[in-house]
Amino acid sequence: MSTQPAPHTESSSAGFAPGWYTVAASKDIGTSPKPYLLNGLPIVTFRDASGQSVTLLDRCAHRNAPLSAGRVVDGHIQCHYHGWQFDGSGQCKAVPGLCGAPEHAARRVPSFACRDSQGWVWVYSEPNVNPESGPYEIPFADQPGYLTIRQRLEMPGPLDAVAENALDVPHTAFVHAGLFRKNKDRKQIEVVIRALDGGAEAQFIGEQRPEGLAGRILAPQGGEVFHWDRFLLPCIAQVVYRLSDRSHLIATTALTPRTPKITDLFATVAVRAPIPNAILRTVFRPVAMRILRQDMEILRRQTEQVARFGGEDFASTEIDVLGLRIKKLLREASNGTVSAVQEERRIKMLV
Amino acid sequence: MSTQPAPHTESSSAGFAPGWYTVAASKDIGTSPKPYLLNGLPIVTFRDASGQSVTLLDRCAHRNAPLSAGRVVDGHIQCHYHGWQFDGSGQCKAVPGLCGAPEHAARRVPSFACRDSQGWVWVYSEPNVNPESGPYEIPFADQPGYLTIRQRLEMPGPLDAVAENALDVPHTAFVHAGLFRKNKDRKQIEVVIRALDGGAEAQFIGEQRPEGLAGRILAPQGGEVFHWDRFLLPCIAQVVYRLSDRSHLIATTALTPRTPKITDLFATVAVRAPIPNAILRTVFRPVAMRILRQDMEILRRQTEQVARFGGEDFASTEIDVLGLRIKKLLREASNGTVSAVQEERRIKMLV
Amino acid sequence: MSTQPAPHTESSSAGFAPGWYTVAASKDIGTSPKPYLLNGLPIVTFRDASGQSVTLLDRCAHRNAPLSAGRVVDGHIQCHYHGWQFDGSGQCKAVPGLCGAPEHAARRVPSFACRDSQGWVWVYSEPNVNPESGPYEIPFADQPGYLTIRQRLEMPGPLDAVAENALDVPHTAFVHAGLFRKNKDRKQIEVVIRALDGGAEAQFIGEQRPEGLAGRILAPQGGEVFHWDRFLLPCIAQVVYRLSDRSHLIATTALTPRTPKITDLFATVAVRAPIPNAILRTVFRPVAMRILRQDMEILRRQTEQVARFGGEDFASTEIDVLGLRIKKLLREASNGTVSAVQEERRIKMLV
Repeated sequence: MSTQPAPHTESSSAGFAPGWYTVAASKDIGTSPKPYLLNGLPIVTFRDASGQSVTLLDRCAHRNAPLSAGRVVDGHIQCHYHGWQFDGSGQCKAVPGLCGAPEHAARRVPSFACRDSQGWVWVYSEPNVNPESGPYEIPFADQPGYLTIRQRLEMPGPLDAVAENALDVPHTAFVHAGLFRKNKDRKQIEVVIRALDGGAEAQFIGEQRPEGLAGRILAPQGGEVFHWDRFLLPCIAQVVYRLSDRSHLIATTALTPRTPKITDLFATVAVRAPIPNAILRTVFRPVAMRILRQDMEILRRQTEQVARFGGEDFASTEIDVLGLRIKKLLREASNGTVSAVQEERRIKMLV
Repeated sequence: MSTQPAPHTESSSAGFAPGWYTVAASKDIGTSPKPYLLNGLPIVTFRDASGQSVTLLDRCAHRNAPLSAGRVVDGHIQCHYHGWQFDGSGQCKAVPGLCGAPEHAARRVPSFACRDSQGWVWVYSEPNVNPESGPYEIPFADQPGYLTIRQRLEMPGPLDAVAENALDVPHTAFVHAGLFRKNKDRKQIEVVIRALDGGAEAQFIGEQRPEGLAGRILAPQGGEVFHWDRFLLPCIAQVVYRLSDRSHLIATTALTPRTPKITDLFATVAVRAPIPNAILRTVFRPVAMRILRQDMEILRRQTEQVARFGGEDFASTEIDVLGLRIKKLLREASNGTVSAVQEERRIKMLV
Repeated sequence: MSTQPAPHTESSSAGFAPGWYTVAASKDIGTSPKPYLLNGLPIVTFRDASGQSVTLLDRCAHRNAPLSAGRVVDGHIQCHYHGWQFDGSGQCKAVPGLCGAPEHAARRVPSFACRDSQGWVWVYSEPNVNPESGPYEIPFADQPGYLTIRQRLEMPGPLDAVAENALDVPHTAFVHAGLFRKNKDRKQIEVVIRALDGGAEAQFIGEQRPEGLAGRILAPQGGEVFHWDRFLLPCIAQVVYRLSDRSHLIATTALTPRTPKITDLFATVAVRAPIPNAILRTVFRPVAMRILRQDMEILRRQTEQVARFGGEDFASTEIDVLGLRIKKLLREASNGTVSAVQEERRIKMLV
């Protein structure tokens, strides 16, 4: 019983790290089965009779029709072709027309651990595994005093390219010119890059509040910024800004590789600012969406170009603070190897 | 002189059986050349000066332009590019501008045996062969007392998937719910599965007239159904229902693989029912077309999913009475091996 | 630093000859960078601060974004993603945010020799080479007494198929029936085929002025035609007609392979005829464009059919006077071998 999908032409040299990935908002999963692609693998997610979200391989064990084209009957998913039914564990529960019991090992459909957590549905990437730990817990989400905004977006590019983009400072002065940082009056700051357990972090020291629209909304009075960018295996890219006691932003994106060229981005932004939440919500989302659309455009171009050349050929400098570490973490996790924690490193950057 | 087309990514594990295949209705072939694909191979069919339908490889021997883009001149097909002409045997008959005879072995185009039979044009799949026997003879077609309906359709899926679908009983309660059988009040019947010479047959014993619209049209008064499903190499799927002395339906479909993902279906339905032919024709076709469109939809989904996973991974039960035999027959015929006739087998099924 | 693009499925057996290729009209190149494909390789062309046209590989050394999506700043091309800048030699001139010098060998982008000549921008196909000789010089272009017309077109097919088509006489009676030659009242002429240095030429002796519209425009009074067809490595197809002392046409096309299935055609037609230039221009272009569109159509069909069959399977006759030589020249040039000049050959042809 193979779960391997058709092979894709790889466009990234980074691998795929096993673990929990977001596939949908919890509110979008009901008794109507929904098809997703997790690292190229078709899966189907629905709620069983108890309301629990469950995920199976999206392929009937019988004639391989997509189960997502069927419907949920008494908490079992029923194939549209011959009416075979499967429970949330992938066990076959009905073979209409057959004299005898439907349950049979050859008729199982691979199942994937599935959990609702903090507004999202998370699926464990390896079939028929009951993982010891649960999905990543998003800090500050839905905490009192914080406005929490959730958004799903389809980003061009492999996971490592999308994660690097989300955590990259130097591109902001160009891709988001005017909205964020600018390419003039740069000042030298210090960046501390350190390893985390299954991740990496860059801390920016001495940065002033960015001059663009986004910075002005969060901290109208300016001042020094406390800023961390983090990547956590298998799929978390997190940006934290603390601009003052009253201004705090934690943008956590869970990245799910759909294909080697498309990554689904599930953003949870928890934000506190010295303006009313109603106003914050009104101004924040349009600015954030404009920034994300600019990133989508450059990621689309990068992805197309890498595909045209048949692979990446990247030159890096020390101000690419997290990109190479993200690739290394993904490669190691996909190979099942773990390297020793790296030394802390300090560099200078002009921002 | 190779006739091999570009290789396709195979989406079916069954092979291709050499033999006669339908490519068009006889009425659609005239002196305007028509392009077809037979198992991925581009061919061109037209009528020569005697009115005989002829088929050549659709590739000029000279610069490989498609002959189907040209026209028929004095019974020869003339290439649009440099005006080379070929007769129905593929012999070169004109090289405009050349001083000397046009006939030359290197200028031949491969030809395929071609026959008009029972309203269809049949082509033998192997080039430059004069087969001993002719195309399959469709029983009851155009016989007195029978209404004969012909229909061409493009079905998603490889030949074996389309043939299994055409001859499969269990899916009818789901894909054609309401039109045909239903998934309730099932009764146990007996199915006899036996080998035929170059084929296989399933006979259904004890089945009552299906409750759906299709059954009511054919046998308004109900009663027991005599029902056979048959596959015959290389391409015939046949369903026979005898519902009473006055009600008889023979649906013969000739299946022509176009690509690994598309099969052309040429249906000839001979039907006798206790209602006037004019009424029968009026009600039969819309119901049959609705059934076929439902099959097209599920076959499309099955084919897409098999392609996504890079191949089939089927689990079968005893009520999949003909599917595995169809695959075995095609595989054996494509390899040129013939296995001994299998024993008759009897199973129970709930319909 | 690899410059290899993604591999294409080859649809032609001929190779790629290194050398100068046309990519654009000089007037179309300014400070806005323009992307082109030269034999599948993405390149970007723009003018530097001195107005010189320059060409780089269209891939930022940093994160592989297409430089053509950026803009030219002070004569350097600036990447849209992180603002890296490169001069016309591919040297990195800016890494915004980095403390230290931007120049570094690992940050170079491959550059291609680039020249403006006779209204066209020519690019040398091999990166980081300063070729000894310049682009091909087009005879009679912009000479007094000659009307010069330039036209760019996208032709289906590999370079050798487009070049053979441009230099082929026999197809004109079919593909361009009525506009050019006709398939009747043919007369026997002599063709002398001779090798040139890095090329081949066919001279047609005894040909009468073609009866079609194109011939009547150029030589209203008829008469004998002096006619040469030439191919010159790497990419020149040239047709010369001298119909009288007052009528002379030199059609030079520079062919640039974009992909294995698309060739860009840059035509320079220098023409003198016994009618005023204003009238000549008015009638010439529509007729020429109609001829070219007919060629595009047959080349599209040929290319599709060759792709469907997975390669060419050509039969040639002696009246295919240049086709095989073009393939041989390209193959030899792509392998870096040079064969001895062939003997002159004379054949008869009916035109």
